Amino acid sequence: MADSPNCDLKSLSPLQLFERVTEQGEKVRALKAGKAPKDEIDAAVRMLLSLKLSYKTTTGQDYQAGLPPKDLVLINNGTTKEEDEDLVDPWNVQTSNAKGVDYDKLIVRFGSSKIDTDLINRIERAIGQKPHHFLRRGIFFSHRDMDQVLDAYENKKPFYLYTGRGPSSQAMHVGHLIPFLFTKWLQEVFDVPLVIQLTDDEKYLWKDMTIEKAYEYARENAKDIIACGFDVNKTFIFSDLDYLGTSAGFYKNIVKVQKHVTFNQVKGIFGFTDSDCIGKISFPAIQAAPSFSSSFPQIFNGKENIQCLIPCAIDQDPYFRMTRDVAPRIGQPKPALLHSVFFPALQGAQTKMSASDPNSSIFLTDTAKQIKTKINKHAFSGGRDTIEEHRKYGGNCDVDVSFMYLTFFLEDDDRLEQLKQAYTSGELLTGELKKVLIETMQPLVAAHQERRKQVTDEIVKQFMTPRKLAFEF
Amino acid sequence: MADSPNCDLKSLSPLQLFERVTEQGEKVRALKAGKAPKDEIDAAVRMLLSLKLSYKTTTGQDYQAGLPPKDLVLINNGTTKEEDEDLVDPWNVQTSNAKGVDYDKLIVRFGSSKIDTDLINRIERAIGQKPHHFLRRGIFFSHRDMDQVLDAYENKKPFYLYTGRGPSSQAMHVGHLIPFLFTKWLQEVFDVPLVIQLTDDEKYLWKDMTIEKAYEYARENAKDIIACGFDVNKTFIFSDLDYLGTSAGFYKNIVKVQKHVTFNQVKGIFGFTDSDCIGKISFPAIQAAPSFSSSFPQIFNGKENIQCLIPCAIDQDPYFRMTRDVAPRIGQPKPALLHSVFFPALQGAQTKMSASDPNSSIFLTDTAKQIKTKINKHAFSGGRDTIEEHRKYGGNCDVDVSFMYLTFFLEDDDRLEQLKQAYTSGELLTGELKKVLIETMQPLVAAHQERRKQVTDEIVKQFMTPRKLAFEF
Repeated sequence: MADSPNCDLKSLSPLQLFERVTEQGEKVRALKAGKAPKDEIDAAVRMLLSLKLSYKTTTGQDYQAGLPPKDLVLINNGTTKEEDEDLVDPWNVQTSNAKGVDYDKLIVRFGSSKIDTDLINRIERAIGQKPHHFLRRGIFFSHRDMDQVLDAYENKKPFYLYTGRGPSSQAMHVGHLIPFLFTKWLQEVFDVPLVIQLTDDEKYLWKDMTIEKAYEYARENAKDIIACGFDVNKTFIFSDLDYLGTSAGFYKNIVKVQKHVTFNQVKGIFGFTDSDCIGKISFPAIQAAPSFSSSFPQIFNGKENIQCLIPCAIDQDPYFRMTRDVAPRIGQPKPALLHSVFFPALQGAQTKMSASDPNSSIFLTDTAKQIKTKINKHAFSGGRDTIEEHRKYGGNCDVDVSFMYLTFFLEDDDRLEQLKQAYTSGELLTGELKKVLIETMQPLVAAHQERRKQVTDEIVKQFMTPRKLAFEF
Repeated sequence: MADSPNCDLKSLSPLQLFERVTEQGEKVRALKAGKAPKDEIDAAVRMLLSLKLSYKTTTGQDYQAGLPPKDLVLINNGTTKEEDEDLVDPWNVQTSNAKGVDYDKLIVRFGSSKIDTDLINRIERAIGQKPHHFLRRGIFFSHRDMDQVLDAYENKKPFYLYTGRGPSSQAMHVGHLIPFLFTKWLQEVFDVPLVIQLTDDEKYLWKDMTIEKAYEYARENAKDIIACGFDVNKTFIFSDLDYLGTSAGFYKNIVKVQKHVTFNQVKGIFGFTDSDCIGKISFPAIQAAPSFSSSFPQIFNGKENIQCLIPCAIDQDPYFRMTRDVAPRIGQPKPALLHSVFFPALQGAQTKMSASDPNSSIFLTDTAKQIKTKINKHAFSGGRDTIEEHRKYGGNCDVDVSFMYLTFFLEDDDRLEQLKQAYTSGELLTGELKKVLIETMQPLVAAHQERRKQVTDEIVKQFMTPRKLAFEF
């Protein structure tokens, strides 16, 4: 699956951003010349730096006074969106709102359904236990046909889980774990088979990377995925580059999808152009095919009609909208979906994290010290500029990245609510909230590293060998 | 590999053809009304029928007086060609010349090289025997880098042969045998491995056909190919639908080619449009990949740089022009090529035969009687209208289909030359020439049928199992 590059912090065009930086620079000079109060100068400088960062992220170039941006790469890949609309596709996530993407609007635009209290209660009744905090806290917020999956489950009909990852680098960050942590929970409560696709072919096609490197990243990433605690008897992890050459059923489903999707359609869905390579153009079929159980004859005994449920971040939905459109035309059931929000970058919720910027993320390889420094230095704060103001007006949890991270990783509902009230009221300071986050993330990452060390090449091989799982079909 | 539908006999537009049929109909009516000589009326009627056939072939509709053609499918698939230029691509062969395509012009247009006497002599020296009559008679007439293959051979460096077939129907006709008969000879004289691709995936993508049907045709066609007498220890036949799911190397080469070819390029080469499915758009990479020895690790022991030589009909050249363009960019040697002319339809050399029109071809399943009837009834004659005229002016071997077929299937050079002189001088009549062809084709087809009966499913399985061949690499 694709993940997004780090995009700009404002939905301004590069030229608009250039003008804003220039204006702000003039403002700072004017304030300094006029010997304005230090607070005011500092605030203006912070804004200037933030604008320069946005400019660099958007254009890939450092701001240079008097040199407007040129030769820009169109980062939205040709897709059109309304002015002020969030940009969300498999390669880009971009919003002008510090709270992050407007997910309610996205549900309407994508035509999916909100995961509401009724659905969460139904899941609770079906599994006989409290739903995962990702569901309770709206981190998985949208779905397609989850009711059907529950119907099937309640009627003792089988289904299976499918999720994946585009192995774009060796290092994964904590945001990459979200779909896997949730998928692991789903697998445990429903007791169903799981397939995990590593799209090394996609990364080879999209990035300046050799096939060998992409495959190596796939195997390295598999270790981090396995370290989440998946059961080898119930889970099949595969690299496309590997599995395509070993499966009788996978290629047949790929070519079936490829017959039923035109270039016009992928152009509309993914924004491909005539200059894109034919590998990119036909790739969506490769991400679609694992939605059909006949892609895994060794697991499903050749059975064709087993329902698939895909937990993934909402940016992957275009692939599966396409898949659901094709499914009935090739005589297959439509996959159901559970969509998560994006995991925010340390710098703010306007973008998701990116593996290519080490400071945008807490990596699974970070030391306790690195985690502490990154959070203290880079986690965007919803707190006030001075202690006095903070005590008086309180902090803003809606834009505070430390608080957002805690909603993902602090499982204790009461504690989280308590922190929220204390921060909002001004009782808890930014530094104190960050300390809670640091103390939450450090043991979590350390434990992951400990489990990952246990994942030998032999274990990876076991997970990645096509085989029957511990289920009868 | 793709084969061509039967196209029209003139390079006229549908509307021009419609007008010609209308005019000719009026002429026939005028002749009859004016009680013209029987010869003249008959000739005009023959022309009318021929025009109506062209009209139907071009438009897919019967000619109806007063109803001009509408809703036409663009048969040239969007490719552009100069006025009066022959149309040659993997799906269409079309010329206005009764002698067939102008191959000298094609060599210039495609940028290939003519197989001249020097090259034929060099082949003779290399193999120490008389070259195949397909070479001596210009049936294989064009090449790319055949000198390099001979350099390699003379320096004891290995190479391998690759050819293929698009299994569009169960029944193959004698024209389909040409590349296989020649490839078999090449394999014997050079003693090299051979891979034969059956593009069942392509047929599934292009035709209204299930995957299962395409695969069944592939296996049926494999029987006819094996019946040509290939050595199971030196030959690997594969269906794409099968082999893609069993080869570690094949998909990797496909995705490498797919990364290095854009939609713009395949649009230019193959005439694809935005309405084509993404399977068609990416398919050229699948026909390209067997040109690289790493697609067959089981045969070449994983060696990457073994020279490939592809004998095929010239209409397949666009695939391999693309392949040769990509090869150096993915660190692979360019495949060399030997191009054949098209095998003419019984109705004339303006098109190649088509499996979809039973009367355009002698099928490998035809009985002796069917062969006799087809040749007598449908083989376009270069003879004169009356015996007297024929004796006086002689026949025209350049357009006579019976004579053309004999150049393919009558191995005796002296006998062929004798027939040519006798026919050209008027000594030999059309019926007599057809009799020679009938007597040549009947035992040839019967012997093929006899050998095909011996090809059991077990033998097909042996040929189609990925395995080491009788060569060390």
